[in-house]
Amino acid sequence: MERIYLDHAATTTVLPEVIETMMNTCKQVSGNPSSIHREGVLARTIIEESRKYLSETLKTSTSQIFFTSGATESNNLVIQSAASSGEFKQIITSPIEHPSIHNSIQYYCSKQNVQVHYLNPNKNGVIDLNELEDMLKSCGKETMVSLLHSHNELGTILPLKECANLCARYGAKLHADTVQSIGLFDIDVTIDGLHSIAGSAHKFNGPKGIGFLYLKDPTHANPILHGGSQERNMRGGTENIMGISGMIKALELSQADRQKRLDKLFFLHNKLRSGIMSLDIPHEFNTPKENFLPKILNVYFEERKNIEWLILNLDIEGIAVSGGSACSSGSEKPSRINEYIRPNSKGKSIRFSFSHLNTEEEIDRTLMVLSKILKD
Amino acid sequence: MERIYLDHAATTTVLPEVIETMMNTCKQVSGNPSSIHREGVLARTIIEESRKYLSETLKTSTSQIFFTSGATESNNLVIQSAASSGEFKQIITSPIEHPSIHNSIQYYCSKQNVQVHYLNPNKNGVIDLNELEDMLKSCGKETMVSLLHSHNELGTILPLKECANLCARYGAKLHADTVQSIGLFDIDVTIDGLHSIAGSAHKFNGPKGIGFLYLKDPTHANPILHGGSQERNMRGGTENIMGISGMIKALELSQADRQKRLDKLFFLHNKLRSGIMSLDIPHEFNTPKENFLPKILNVYFEERKNIEWLILNLDIEGIAVSGGSACSSGSEKPSRINEYIRPNSKGKSIRFSFSHLNTEEEIDRTLMVLSKILKD
Repeated sequence: MERIYLDHAATTTVLPEVIETMMNTCKQVSGNPSSIHREGVLARTIIEESRKYLSETLKTSTSQIFFTSGATESNNLVIQSAASSGEFKQIITSPIEHPSIHNSIQYYCSKQNVQVHYLNPNKNGVIDLNELEDMLKSCGKETMVSLLHSHNELGTILPLKECANLCARYGAKLHADTVQSIGLFDIDVTIDGLHSIAGSAHKFNGPKGIGFLYLKDPTHANPILHGGSQERNMRGGTENIMGISGMIKALELSQADRQKRLDKLFFLHNKLRSGIMSLDIPHEFNTPKENFLPKILNVYFEERKNIEWLILNLDIEGIAVSGGSACSSGSEKPSRINEYIRPNSKGKSIRFSFSHLNTEEEIDRTLMVLSKILKD
Repeated sequence: MERIYLDHAATTTVLPEVIETMMNTCKQVSGNPSSIHREGVLARTIIEESRKYLSETLKTSTSQIFFTSGATESNNLVIQSAASSGEFKQIITSPIEHPSIHNSIQYYCSKQNVQVHYLNPNKNGVIDLNELEDMLKSCGKETMVSLLHSHNELGTILPLKECANLCARYGAKLHADTVQSIGLFDIDVTIDGLHSIAGSAHKFNGPKGIGFLYLKDPTHANPILHGGSQERNMRGGTENIMGISGMIKALELSQADRQKRLDKLFFLHNKLRSGIMSLDIPHEFNTPKENFLPKILNVYFEERKNIEWLILNLDIEGIAVSGGSACSSGSEKPSRINEYIRPNSKGKSIRFSFSHLNTEEEIDRTLMVLSKILKD
């Protein structure tokens, strides 16, 4: 039985062209990018050309791009800097952010006496911009707002420009975790109020262990990893050249193919959504009907026979889905996001997440299996 | 002209078997190790088997091994934890440590009011254990000692057991940066007084961007990257499975081949050392005559014509060497280590560093070129 992988929000498969690029980098580059001899210069050139490509894609300058080990590190760097630089006295966020934002805010803000204010998104993860405006009014200028651009569990999309501009109007700055958006959306980092964004290669068919951070104004940021002067003193440690070259190749492929990928994702998303609606199994969609990332469809199935073991039963039937963020599944606590949107619910929320490589037939089979398990 | 790469202390070339392993991991593993479906379990299995191999190599348990993005991150985690946990009131170190120790000590200890005491190694980087003992006596129990096992610029080896046991005698704990030692020496982490060690795969023919940390007692350690519950809550962020599998393959290869590699390194080291002695160019060896890492030969050449551009001229002649740690070369400041061992000197110290893949002929040619440049 061919497996059906529908957990691309947790991690994507690495494309063959990306693997090939990384192998070539490994074979051809023997130097340390900090070394001044020819081998070092070759390594440095690959990194700086990668930075140039990424900065052009984001319509910004190379001096605002930093390579990290992934979005978790990027998010930690932003929150740690916000809390410790003295630039911010308040952070506004939501209770349904990714653990790398949620937990770093809890850690750094309590240490630095930065006040944290939580918005109240609705049960589809939609932020109320009026509520945000009220908070911004009362918080004053020294405020950072940290929100996911595309919600990693629910697929809800934040209206980035409106939200950033609102922040700008009150002198606040927005950090957007764009980890699920990179490769699918054209993120314009020049919009007023947008301060920083974070990305991870493995969410857009690149390798794990590499990501980036865009910082509009790096002068207030502090490193997390102290050491050599790599990344213009922002991150010590020998650069992951293979990972960087793989990430950029993955980004190039996604840029060249973006509209086709989006069309495919919308097709798969809509097919599964309407298929579930016609299954006669009590459910509600956690992913909103509008302004959603087509990569994700999050569905709540009401309590019934077999619901407790739904993910396991799907897995046995060859279908990989998840109950929330992979970064939460390792822990035994119930998903913080599910608890927020459906406190004490006894059914089960399932996140289906697609890639452009999934097929119509896979969705058909998924619907068949869902029906079999839940009607059994 | 074939290039001669003699900068293996900066970074090593990735062995073909390691590249193949990483490619296979990339192709075969599509899941996120935190996911509970079959793809996730396969990814998790690779990580935990890797952890098992590494822990067995270090004769310790898997619960004491943490994967990181490299030794810089490992070192930062140790120093940050030492400074912020309240477990240590004093840190004893040397002024010639790697930037990831030196700079993180300066950063974290000043913030946390932990006192830092600097030993005075001699000009070959040798630590005086009597001086260490005096410091330990006056510092008391709540003391961490942080020292390089194999010095990355000078090749000096710390007598690990003696030093760790000395720490234990006074209730102190030793953190040893073993980044240049892993793969060449059998490190016994069970010795009394040894608290933690750090390693990076790219120093032993593995990939860049992956490393590890051994912690004898993880209970006092704090994460640097807050987020998911990966690495048993010690490091948030999706694990770099490809890097981990590559690192372990590189370690396996080095374990199988260790004595042969060491013999070859001693041969190359001794050949270059005696060759330089017979060149009639005024010099002194910065690497000690005893207890040295054969991978490194650091030589001071006295001031003379062409000395300023020695590294550049060697590079033009096809030979890659360095003037110090690659982690320092990116910056424009003079090497802190060179300044310490030879303050205000006008000659030039060169670090030659070998791999088992270098050849006798390459050393012959290096000696010829050195002679040509410096006698010109």
